[in-house]
Amino acid sequence: MRVVLILSGGLDSTTLLYELREQGHEVRALGINYGQRHRKELDKADDICSGLGVEYRIADLRALQTFMSGSSQTVAAIPVPEGHYAEETMKLTIVPNRNMLMLAVAGAWAISTKSDSVAYAAHAGDHTIYPDCREEFVQALDQALQLADWHSVKILRPFIKLTKADIVKLGFGLRVPFENTWSCYKGQEIHCGRCGTCVERIEAFMLAGVPDPTVYGS
Amino acid sequence: MRVVLILSGGLDSTTLLYELREQGHEVRALGINYGQRHRKELDKADDICSGLGVEYRIADLRALQTFMSGSSQTVAAIPVPEGHYAEETMKLTIVPNRNMLMLAVAGAWAISTKSDSVAYAAHAGDHTIYPDCREEFVQALDQALQLADWHSVKILRPFIKLTKADIVKLGFGLRVPFENTWSCYKGQEIHCGRCGTCVERIEAFMLAGVPDPTVYGS
Repeated sequence: MRVVLILSGGLDSTTLLYELREQGHEVRALGINYGQRHRKELDKADDICSGLGVEYRIADLRALQTFMSGSSQTVAAIPVPEGHYAEETMKLTIVPNRNMLMLAVAGAWAISTKSDSVAYAAHAGDHTIYPDCREEFVQALDQALQLADWHSVKILRPFIKLTKADIVKLGFGLRVPFENTWSCYKGQEIHCGRCGTCVERIEAFMLAGVPDPTVYGS
Repeated sequence: MRVVLILSGGLDSTTLLYELREQGHEVRALGINYGQRHRKELDKADDICSGLGVEYRIADLRALQTFMSGSSQTVAAIPVPEGHYAEETMKLTIVPNRNMLMLAVAGAWAISTKSDSVAYAAHAGDHTIYPDCREEFVQALDQALQLADWHSVKILRPFIKLTKADIVKLGFGLRVPFENTWSCYKGQEIHCGRCGTCVERIEAFMLAGVPDPTVYGS
């Protein structure tokens, strides 16, 4: 199978990259620069792909920031919420219609390269919080993408039933270089250890019983 | 109703702009720069919106050209097909997944501005030729856009049952300044009068029995 993988440079999508290659698929990796604070993850993804000889391209969506007001990931003035994600603070970290935008771009590349599918690392922790992580949304968009061209492309979410801890376990078995993946929303020199994604990352390694190679701030 | 209208600067979408305003809706207009040869239409759209006091923004998708190979609208080396659109020559003028990309961006802006809908001027002449103009595609994407956020946005195609000649008749009644709209794919100083969209434009005015104010090349 030929796959366009949305690769954020985080541990979920990097593990999916290793998994898809392990299964023998031909993978192209797509990074999205939507002006996020943590663009560091894009460089991490680039390094990972270079090492594996995987084609990696960044879709630069920064020109669209004007249509995406109100998100703490793109608006520097709004502080990043710390600690566990709760429904209300999560609303601050949303880029409107982000998943449709990412999947539309990935779909365009998949059509151009006659790929069979677009894959991304949505997992069991995501889908109740963001509206565009809901099953019904993805089903409708999958339907649309299959009909968007004479060449039909499907949306795959191979990790949708896995928790983040399951993904850490899987990645550990696949020898994913977790130390080269990036989660922190703050995008500083090292992981802050306190924002929502850092807390999730720390917990996932603990629950998985896998040694966490990440260096966190105090 | 609050609407984000995809405005190409052509006669169809410009007529829809006038129609939506005539009906009393609050309209924002979105131009898409995907690196098309005929970017002239974007300037035309800008002029029209300035005159009406309508907010107009351009989404610059040129950075995505790398994912859209193979189209004569974006690749300068491929000649524009002339004469009537036939299935085979049409395939050359397709930007992969273009409608999903445009509607995803328009959807993001609509969500940010709490708009009720995204509208575009698809009409009865379009929908059998491009796969992403098919009814099933639009229904699936409409479903996805309604689910993409807590704030639900619908896709509207008010002209879907109208022919281009019907649109010319409607626009004539609404005093649309047709001389300021742009159709030609070649994007030269004046309309070439020979490419597929010029031929369609000429015919539409003839069938509508409306005087055509366009200046065409010989």
